[in-house]
Amino acid sequence: MTKPMIQIALDQTNLIDAMAVAAKVHSYVDVIEVGTILAFAEGMSAVQTLRKQYPDHILVCDMKTTDGGAILATMAFEAGANWITVSAAAHIATIEACKKVADKFNGEIQIEIYGNWTMEDAQHWVDLGITQAIYHRSRDAELAGIGWTQADIDKMHQLSALGLELSITGGIVPEELHLFEGIKAKTFIAGRALAGNNGQQTATELRNQINRYWA
Amino acid sequence: MTKPMIQIALDQTNLIDAMAVAAKVHSYVDVIEVGTILAFAEGMSAVQTLRKQYPDHILVCDMKTTDGGAILATMAFEAGANWITVSAAAHIATIEACKKVADKFNGEIQIEIYGNWTMEDAQHWVDLGITQAIYHRSRDAELAGIGWTQADIDKMHQLSALGLELSITGGIVPEELHLFEGIKAKTFIAGRALAGNNGQQTATELRNQINRYWA
Repeated sequence: MTKPMIQIALDQTNLIDAMAVAAKVHSYVDVIEVGTILAFAEGMSAVQTLRKQYPDHILVCDMKTTDGGAILATMAFEAGANWITVSAAAHIATIEACKKVADKFNGEIQIEIYGNWTMEDAQHWVDLGITQAIYHRSRDAELAGIGWTQADIDKMHQLSALGLELSITGGIVPEELHLFEGIKAKTFIAGRALAGNNGQQTATELRNQINRYWA
Repeated sequence: MTKPMIQIALDQTNLIDAMAVAAKVHSYVDVIEVGTILAFAEGMSAVQTLRKQYPDHILVCDMKTTDGGAILATMAFEAGANWITVSAAAHIATIEACKKVADKFNGEIQIEIYGNWTMEDAQHWVDLGITQAIYHRSRDAELAGIGWTQADIDKMHQLSALGLELSITGGIVPEELHLFEGIKAKTFIAGRALAGNNGQQTATELRNQINRYWA
């Protein structure tokens, strides 16, 4: 199993603040994400600017695409994204449209799991050749104090078994990484935990846990 | 029953083109929508610019909010939106966060219906005091040739019965408006049909049908 990577989610409401965070964390993260908030605040110029500044990082545009798949995907990949996110609630035709555009750009799409999805939906994603999904506690659920449950962990194992690599997010802390042992984790995504004063230390601790549980 | 309004969806990939469409159609539409594509292309400056140019229209920001509700909603309302869209797939905590922000700004939220939602979900929206939802064929489903079905119409009647006003979209044409008779229609949303060479004529025909079926 390949080792999970560390992803910073840039969810600032303006590009200046986001670039300041990126400048701080780029040396200890593998993947830089233009979060939905930043993308809606600044548009595709956020993706273009980060691509130019960080040509060697994997760059994700978190659009949670729900419709208009071909146009949105083309915009993001043309701006320099490597991966884009697509909502699990999107019509399968939208997901397929995004996948086709991704293939054209040698990019990848990540299914962002929200709402009342089923394992049958997940099988459809795999059937389209999709290899990645994102599993998380919602930011708002997290704020409401809802933690990782055994049901979450079980579903992640099932998705792994279907062949999907998972990016996991929602209050990720080093001391909880053991919960995800045995899961095909692609990245662990964090925002404030990596951007704060102890960000570099948190990243080191995340790497230590990754090395321990994904040998 | 109040008469449905006509809404232009601006889904251009840059603000210059979008403003050109708005300049053409503003006199015969009630509601101007910054579509997801335009919002991701240009960021909140698209909302600000349209608000400044068209102070008296209802302005919608189609964010299909799925997470980070309070921040996204605040961004859009501060930029001048009257309504924002929230994904039916969002966690109920996200929907509630958006509603609270909307109340603060005297704005409204519209639940955008995608994915495997249930009438029980819809009841939760109503319980939060939400009065609007958006029902549509997805753009990509439309491109795939999937039409309005009796199941769609039945669900719209059920949502109406719960008290939700519906904005209806996805290949809206005047000759199909009769399909929606008896439904609490808030707006009919179109893009190219209103922006094209026959846009004004299409708007007139839509008004005629509205007057016929929503007396």
